[in-house]
Amino acid sequence: MYKGYFIDLDGTAYRGKEVILETLEFVKKLHDREIPYLFLTNNSTKTPQMVVEALKSFGYPVTEEQIYTSSLATAQYVYDQNPNARIYMIGEIGLQSALTEKGLTLVEQGEEADYVVFGLDREINYEKYFQACLAIYNGATFIVTNGDLALPTERGLMPGNGALASVISASTGMEPIFIGKPNSTIMEKAVDLIGLSRKDVAMIGDNYFTDILAGIHAGIPTIYIEGGFSKREDVLTYDVQPTHVLKDLSQFEI
Amino acid sequence: MYKGYFIDLDGTAYRGKEVILETLEFVKKLHDREIPYLFLTNNSTKTPQMVVEALKSFGYPVTEEQIYTSSLATAQYVYDQNPNARIYMIGEIGLQSALTEKGLTLVEQGEEADYVVFGLDREINYEKYFQACLAIYNGATFIVTNGDLALPTERGLMPGNGALASVISASTGMEPIFIGKPNSTIMEKAVDLIGLSRKDVAMIGDNYFTDILAGIHAGIPTIYIEGGFSKREDVLTYDVQPTHVLKDLSQFEI
Repeated sequence: MYKGYFIDLDGTAYRGKEVILETLEFVKKLHDREIPYLFLTNNSTKTPQMVVEALKSFGYPVTEEQIYTSSLATAQYVYDQNPNARIYMIGEIGLQSALTEKGLTLVEQGEEADYVVFGLDREINYEKYFQACLAIYNGATFIVTNGDLALPTERGLMPGNGALASVISASTGMEPIFIGKPNSTIMEKAVDLIGLSRKDVAMIGDNYFTDILAGIHAGIPTIYIEGGFSKREDVLTYDVQPTHVLKDLSQFEI
Repeated sequence: MYKGYFIDLDGTAYRGKEVILETLEFVKKLHDREIPYLFLTNNSTKTPQMVVEALKSFGYPVTEEQIYTSSLATAQYVYDQNPNARIYMIGEIGLQSALTEKGLTLVEQGEEADYVVFGLDREINYEKYFQACLAIYNGATFIVTNGDLALPTERGLMPGNGALASVISASTGMEPIFIGKPNSTIMEKAVDLIGLSRKDVAMIGDNYFTDILAGIHAGIPTIYIEGGFSKREDVLTYDVQPTHVLKDLSQFEI
C-alpha cells in the first residue's frame, strides 16, 4: 500500500523481551519484496549496531543502515546546520558515536560549545548540568534528542530524557529543540534517508503521542497498532486520527 | 519599629565575601537591645553551625539558634505532619542533619518512603532520581526545600534546587510542595520559632521574588533593601509593594 515504512521498536516490533509475531511476519514480507523500511527509535543510548543485535535476536531481517535513532537524527540536524559545530554533549555511547561519526567536535568545557546536545545519560551529574548551563548562557543552542518523560523498565518507570533535560531549561529559562518523536525533525531526516516522498511512506507504532503524532506532524501516513502504550478506545477519541487503526499488522495489505 | 526581625543572608547580610556594613551595624543594635532576630536562608546544604561560622567571620553576633534554613523548616514541616515519617532524602549535610535531628527516619529505598525530601545535592545521580520517582509512584509526598532555579557563584550561575527537582516533577507529573522563600511555610515555622505575632516581625531582604514575596504571602511586614538581586526601579513597578523600600538599613529606625 505504501512504498516504504518506518517502524517503531518497543511496543511495535517487540514488547520487552517478547517479539510481536505479526510485526515480524510483516517485516519479513517487506524484506522479501524489497520494500524499504527503517526502524525508528527515540532511544538515544544505543548505536545502530546494538539495535541490530537486539532485532536480529528476535529474528528480524535488518542491517545497521535500517536503524534510525534520535541520536542519528540529532547528529544529522546539527551537521546540516553547521558541520564544524563544537558540541557539549551529555549522553551515552549511542549519541557520542552518532556525533563523532558525523565528524562533529565534542568539547569538555561548556563555554567552548556552539551546541548543547542532551541525550539520556545514566551517568548524569551536577558538573555536567553546570557545564550545559554555562554553554547556554554563553549562547549555545540547546538540543535534546527526545522528550520522553519516563521509561518503562523491569524496575519500574525510570526518568526519561525529557525529564532529565528539564534541569537545564528550568535553570536557564531556555527551551530546547527536541528532535525525536513526536517532533517532525526525526521524521524529516528519516524521509531524506529512505528517499521517498512523504505520502508514500507510513509510520507504524503503538504510541499515539510519539509515533502517530510524529507522522501527523510531518505529514506522513500513520498506522496505529493495538496492544502497546496507547489503548485503542483512547486513540479513537483523539482529534486527529491515525490513517489506519489496526489490531496488528497481520491485517495490513502491504 | 518591630518586635523582631527575619534577615536574609546573601545580598542582605553579606554579598559574596563582603559584609554589608549597614546590616552589620543594624544587627549589632538588635543584639544590644535584645530584640530577637533570625537569619533566614533558602540554602539547604549547610547546618546552622556552618552558617554561624560564616556570619561570625563577618562580625555578626549570632548563635546557632538564630539560624533558620529551608532544611530546618522542611524537617519541622514533615515532623508536624508525621513524626514517624520515613523519608527518601536527596540532599547534602544541612538537610540530612536537620531531618535526623528531628528524629525522622531516612530510608535507602524509595519504595519504603512516606516522603521524598529534596534539597540541593551536588552529588545528584540517576539512581537517586529513580528512587525518588519510585517513592512518588508508590504514594510518597514530594517536598522540595526551596525552588531556587539558579545559584550565583564565582564560576557562574549554577543549577539551583528547583531546577534539579524538576526531573522528578516532569517524570512523575507530581508537583512538589516547596518550603523555602517565597513560600509561606518557612515563614510560618520561623514565626512559631521567634514567638511573635506576624504583624510584629519584619522580613528583611534584597530579593523581591524570594524574601519580599515570602513576607507578603505570609502576611508579614517586609523591608526591601537595595544593592542586591532586585533593582529598586523594578521593585517599585510590582503590584504588591514591600512595606518599606530602603537604600540600606542605616536609614531604618529600630
